[in-house]
Amino acid sequence: MEFSTKDKFTFIGVIGGSEVSPDIARQAEEVGRKIALRGAVLVCGGLTGVMEAACRGASEAGGLTIGILPGDSRRTANPYVKIPIVTGIGYARNVAVVKTSQAVIAIDGSYGTLTEIAYALQSGIPVIGLGTWSISIDGQEETSIHRAASPQEAVEKAFTILKNQY
Amino acid sequence: MEFSTKDKFTFIGVIGGSEVSPDIARQAEEVGRKIALRGAVLVCGGLTGVMEAACRGASEAGGLTIGILPGDSRRTANPYVKIPIVTGIGYARNVAVVKTSQAVIAIDGSYGTLTEIAYALQSGIPVIGLGTWSISIDGQEETSIHRAASPQEAVEKAFTILKNQY
Amino acid sequence: MEFSTKDKFTFIGVIGGSEVSPDIARQAEEVGRKIALRGAVLVCGGLTGVMEAACRGASEAGGLTIGILPGDSRRTANPYVKIPIVTGIGYARNVAVVKTSQAVIAIDGSYGTLTEIAYALQSGIPVIGLGTWSISIDGQEETSIHRAASPQEAVEKAFTILKNQY
Amino acid sequence: MEFSTKDKFTFIGVIGGSEVSPDIARQAEEVGRKIALRGAVLVCGGLTGVMEAACRGASEAGGLTIGILPGDSRRTANPYVKIPIVTGIGYARNVAVVKTSQAVIAIDGSYGTLTEIAYALQSGIPVIGLGTWSISIDGQEETSIHRAASPQEAVEKAFTILKNQY
Repeated sequence: MEFSTKDKFTFIGVIGGSEVSPDIARQAEEVGRKIALRGAVLVCGGLTGVMEAACRGASEAGGLTIGILPGDSRRTANPYVKIPIVTGIGYARNVAVVKTSQAVIAIDGSYGTLTEIAYALQSGIPVIGLGTWSISIDGQEETSIHRAASPQEAVEKAFTILKNQY
Repeated sequence: MEFSTKDKFTFIGVIGGSEVSPDIARQAEEVGRKIALRGAVLVCGGLTGVMEAACRGASEAGGLTIGILPGDSRRTANPYVKIPIVTGIGYARNVAVVKTSQAVIAIDGSYGTLTEIAYALQSGIPVIGLGTWSISIDGQEETSIHRAASPQEAVEKAFTILKNQY
Repeated sequence: MEFSTKDKFTFIGVIGGSEVSPDIARQAEEVGRKIALRGAVLVCGGLTGVMEAACRGASEAGGLTIGILPGDSRRTANPYVKIPIVTGIGYARNVAVVKTSQAVIAIDGSYGTLTEIAYALQSGIPVIGLGTWSISIDGQEETSIHRAASPQEAVEKAFTILKNQY
Repeated sequence: MEFSTKDKFTFIGVIGGSEVSPDIARQAEEVGRKIALRGAVLVCGGLTGVMEAACRGASEAGGLTIGILPGDSRRTANPYVKIPIVTGIGYARNVAVVKTSQAVIAIDGSYGTLTEIAYALQSGIPVIGLGTWSISIDGQEETSIHRAASPQEAVEKAFTILKNQY
């Protein structure tokens, strides 16, 4: 495989828990597949659950997958991670997953996912939510999470937002 | 000042944004004061806003205050931080603020505070909320945040939970 | 560009300072070029100096380059980084540069490079030294750094060690 | 125990390996004791070996001790740590140990200690070496490590440098 010096990648993050239902996994896989088919690189936390399903989808569609791992060994990456980033910094790596992405698609709702949504909102990185957390304060819902009803819509929204933003 | 080898500290975190209204600052100061009067050490992110107000309250009541700073210099700490921890790791330090605390009191609602609430829930560290974020998924509210209506109640709840837990 | 699910990458780190002489830069560029020609992915800290020269060499030879950045923006990467990892954790990211690499080639000698050599030795990751630090204690030189006299030899040693190790 | 708002602490780091000979441990304990007797706060990595010995010395002399821990639990701190900072970021915490200190005393020589020496030199934080690493490049020894021949001399040098610096 050869890379041209002209290649310029787009990076889309997929964030979600490490233990998920088969239905959620199917949605994550579809999100990953569509990201790859659109030519973008998938960024995630590199572990199981949503992360593995998304990597499988992207990888089987010929895409490049980055797993930013919390632990000390590349062996902890799921088998569909092409580029394991071994941070050794534990769940503080959630910041790096978010900042490495130009937009993130949040699927389902572990607490780790919530840290990543909040870091993305703090950093001004667009968040697309697919069946994920709602957050509110004083009865006012936070509206800066872009809601999607399907994997298709989530990926479309991510690319539309990026296109308008840059 | 001298420490006995028998001294054993309790660590209570106060998390909240760096820019807040005077009313929120008053509440944070009261929380800090009460933590110190109960003999616990106050842990926070060491900067302005809720963090500074809480440190001022604790410090003026003779308490010990720890500020876990994101940046590279102890000079970034607010003037009421007795023990500046200079991490140099940016907002990844939010993990350390939470893990260093045996319980956290979340006041008001910046996005950074939300990362800390989520890290605390992930780590099983009790969260007491004072006018802070509500989070829900699929219409179900996350109930593991203990709600308090006043600084007094927030601090009481923190100590009651700790007493029952250990 | 398309990736097969069978692709398996080898990751070689190049560590060195952000300000270097033209001669050192030439050596770093040659190291990068040879890493790419051997089909491995180049890992580095993503900034200027040795990092930029090595990325330029690898990129111009059609290779893939990863820059693990200390700051908060992908814009801080040198122009030859294909995959910017935006950590936001400052120089604590040196750990991740090392752990993401299966072997590291240390060129010249900034203090940051020394942190990376030491992290690599601590983690059991092979270090090849090209005009870099010597370290000793009680008059005994640390011999686990593999010395190379040329870019060619440095890259050869890295691949030979990896081949024998795995 | 009560703190005056006027109290201002000096922070001295002690860095060294987690497994050491009885002789090294005795030296570390003496360093810790003298730091406490001079009224400064001892900062360290919070674990065993040099860190535990230094904390024991400081603690028994009535001093305050901070242990900046790599792991996820305060239970990993040695018993003489009064203030455990639970970072959860692994050995990336070495940066925080150094930056939290106004000067560091390096004892003996693990690889972790070498990362800390290098981070300190990079950050302009004075390093006093007691039987620790020597580093050189191109046959030139790095002379910015201040050498001490005894615990007494190491602590004196640390305070003298700080006094002249601020």
